[in-house]
Amino acid sequence: MKLSTTRSLNNMSTLRELYIEELQDLYDAENQILEALPKMADKASHPDLQRAFKEHLEQTRGHVQRLEKIFEGLEEKPSGKKCHGMQGLIEEGEELMKKNLDDDVLDAGLIAAAQKVEHYEMAGYGTVRTFARQLGEEDAANLLQETLNEEGRTDEKLTRLAENNINKEAAR
Amino acid sequence: MKLSTTRSLNNMSTLRELYIEELQDLYDAENQILEALPKMADKASHPDLQRAFKEHLEQTRGHVQRLEKIFEGLEEKPSGKKCHGMQGLIEEGEELMKKNLDDDVLDAGLIAAAQKVEHYEMAGYGTVRTFARQLGEEDAANLLQETLNEEGRTDEKLTRLAENNINKEAAR
Repeated sequence: MKLSTTRSLNNMSTLRELYIEELQDLYDAENQILEALPKMADKASHPDLQRAFKEHLEQTRGHVQRLEKIFEGLEEKPSGKKCHGMQGLIEEGEELMKKNLDDDVLDAGLIAAAQKVEHYEMAGYGTVRTFARQLGEEDAANLLQETLNEEGRTDEKLTRLAENNINKEAAR
Repeated sequence: MKLSTTRSLNNMSTLRELYIEELQDLYDAENQILEALPKMADKASHPDLQRAFKEHLEQTRGHVQRLEKIFEGLEEKPSGKKCHGMQGLIEEGEELMKKNLDDDVLDAGLIAAAQKVEHYEMAGYGTVRTFARQLGEEDAANLLQETLNEEGRTDEKLTRLAENNINKEAAR
């Protein structure tokens, strides 16, 4: 391990350490989402969109529990990293919600913001699922794949809402 | 348009305005990527990953030109919005690059960072493509779909690099 001498400074010189750091990033991201989703559900007008946000809030609680289970197995702490990526995405959503928009336009914007959040998570969970497999952590890989599938389905649901209902009303 | 009286304060009360704002967000995001990619290519060790970043840099120049063409057609300015989402993602990549990591681990981390960037763009381009269709802007929708396809292929290429080569070396 050629970086062993600088290990205390960098504390991340193996794939396992990168895996843990990415998991901590997702854990912080999920917790930021837990705070943001109720506000988004509150601002949404279309009942299907409100429902989608509330359902995803429930799912997100499950994603946090899965991550906690993985951290237990690894004997590592889940907290300790701030996810700047998610912070930026949530700031964008908050900027949008501050504007006095027509309900339908705000709904279209909320879907756009939520899909960026979903895609962040899809990229993140895809990464840690691949890392888990390469590290031989099969149980963790399966749990992460379950979350990845749920994030993907939420993204598809949001696309359907955008295409079928909400934006058509906004475009009128 | 019920918000017409507050239009000057909010300047975004129609889907067209939201569409332009999302395009401006992507324009700023692409320009941030143009700055970040050469640094990422420089830090990457695996020749396939270096090549992937350099190829994507070329593609990104094309994406910027497509956006400029769309703005010309809309008679709107491309600049004016700061993309906080991309800023956060790029900060994450920069934090990673500051650490003295083993080459293979850094490559795995660079792929993870790049896939978050790709997914941000996939979400953003999916949104504006849908908006363009709903606004009857078919030429723009087609250009945006082309970029969306290229972002998706880049993401798949990065997944293959992660699964087939690079991370296996990092996990050794």
